[in-house]
Amino acid sequence: MNSVTVHTPATLSNLCSGFDILGMALEQPYDVITINKIEGKDIVIKHLDNYGLSTDPKQNIAGVVMEAMRKNLQTEQGFEIIIDKKIKPGSGIGSSAASAAGVAVAANEILQANFNKQQLVQFAMEGEVLASGSKHADNLAPCIYGGLVLIRDTPTLDIIPLNTPELFITIVHPQIEIKTSYARSILPKDLPLKTAITQWANVAGLVTGFIQHDYSLISRSLKDVVAEPVRSPLIPGFDEVRERSMQVGALGGGISGSGPSLFMLSRTAEIANEVEKEMRLVYVKLGIEFKTYVSTIAEQGVRIV
Amino acid sequence: MNSVTVHTPATLSNLCSGFDILGMALEQPYDVITINKIEGKDIVIKHLDNYGLSTDPKQNIAGVVMEAMRKNLQTEQGFEIIIDKKIKPGSGIGSSAASAAGVAVAANEILQANFNKQQLVQFAMEGEVLASGSKHADNLAPCIYGGLVLIRDTPTLDIIPLNTPELFITIVHPQIEIKTSYARSILPKDLPLKTAITQWANVAGLVTGFIQHDYSLISRSLKDVVAEPVRSPLIPGFDEVRERSMQVGALGGGISGSGPSLFMLSRTAEIANEVEKEMRLVYVKLGIEFKTYVSTIAEQGVRIV
Repeated sequence: MNSVTVHTPATLSNLCSGFDILGMALEQPYDVITINKIEGKDIVIKHLDNYGLSTDPKQNIAGVVMEAMRKNLQTEQGFEIIIDKKIKPGSGIGSSAASAAGVAVAANEILQANFNKQQLVQFAMEGEVLASGSKHADNLAPCIYGGLVLIRDTPTLDIIPLNTPELFITIVHPQIEIKTSYARSILPKDLPLKTAITQWANVAGLVTGFIQHDYSLISRSLKDVVAEPVRSPLIPGFDEVRERSMQVGALGGGISGSGPSLFMLSRTAEIANEVEKEMRLVYVKLGIEFKTYVSTIAEQGVRIV
Repeated sequence: MNSVTVHTPATLSNLCSGFDILGMALEQPYDVITINKIEGKDIVIKHLDNYGLSTDPKQNIAGVVMEAMRKNLQTEQGFEIIIDKKIKPGSGIGSSAASAAGVAVAANEILQANFNKQQLVQFAMEGEVLASGSKHADNLAPCIYGGLVLIRDTPTLDIIPLNTPELFITIVHPQIEIKTSYARSILPKDLPLKTAITQWANVAGLVTGFIQHDYSLISRSLKDVVAEPVRSPLIPGFDEVRERSMQVGALGGGISGSGPSLFMLSRTAEIANEVEKEMRLVYVKLGIEFKTYVSTIAEQGVRIV
């Protein structure tokens, strides 16, 4: 095998009360990554997109992950990695995770390495460290496993796939910049016990709602009393997007990852499309450029095509 | 109908990571409460046990709940309430909740009031306020609903029954006194965000483990980084009980409610009985009087007999 191409999906992390522990893979959008074997020992990175990401393999997430896997497998095979990012960096829907996970899965295939999903998340985390400075798996795990996953414990990568009912996700990415590091820095260092209990009561409800296919319970549990109060003021239109979305029948939603993208979950494609219209209205009125997506849950994660 | 007798079960609240939001009804032990209609308007309380609880209806949980229901139904029917408590007050396995819930269910029957379970929890909470000064439903809800329940929201009594696999519960009640109010007072007022995330990751895992009948996940998620660190030092033998229980195959466990009772969950009756032996050994060695129980989950809550 000399060439592998993968589609590597955007992911929704946090999901309100599931702050830092839940993530979901999306059908739309996704990046396209091709890995070709080349002569020599180099890792050569090419970007077909125009996001200005570094092509130095030590400064590029894809390069770092590739190198980690080569090292583990004790091979010096050279590779060309061609990346077409459709997921804009900094959008809050797992752009860096998509690069890291996509390369991990593609490299596993081209090197016929037989790493399991958990091991691939481990390799991909090397890339996330470069991107955000910390080891997080709440985008990587759903990107590789697909569907909705719970990361019960990050150090041991205790990743639990969760069943869900049919859901439609509407995302709006207002084109403003919020750095992940800044979004982290404004989080409260401590939580009142009462607030923490509210959050874990809701996450227990949310997980139960997903597994038991109880839309009403999902809706009642999509609440975030931890990150949303400090992060939502950074995102113009936040309150109005949610209010209008709920009015047309959305189950609930909030900030995707650390923002600025917002997400809303709906039971039907019709409602999800109505939600998209409302989101558009809000940002047209505010005069802020934006992108929207309507997606289902990607049952499979990174896909070899 | 002039007389109703109920069996009203002990309950296990918190369940480690489910602090303040999870509760489970137990087959053993249970209180027996009989309500008889009598001439006149009085509420007369008789205790067959020797725990020295007040028989003044305004100072007795059963009396307070009975009065709340009479008031709501605008009746002045007199009642005699005969209580035989098997669940020792202050043991941490829902003694006061058993009285409150038992009377609520029995009164609902004898008055043919047709209140639903949620409403009965509401009435019973009047009794819990007398007992602990605060409105909590994590013992009352399982006592009335049976099985394992999640209390997602206490003010609206959003109570969600959760499916569980077959489980055996071993409880040891070392006869030391820990006041609920004191056990509450030593809880941290604030939690580091990281600690809170650990707790909610575990409660999400625990709930998933129960619903999906995943014993290993239940075992990995039975962790409490919030109350246990401050409360367990009050209970002699805590570490040894858990260590020995795990060695004979228990899934995990911790403090029942606010203590001093300890609980361990096991997959089989054999293991649960082994756990009981280990618990006995620990407290015999420590020279502390104790009681032990081995129980299944009570699928039904308060039972009319």
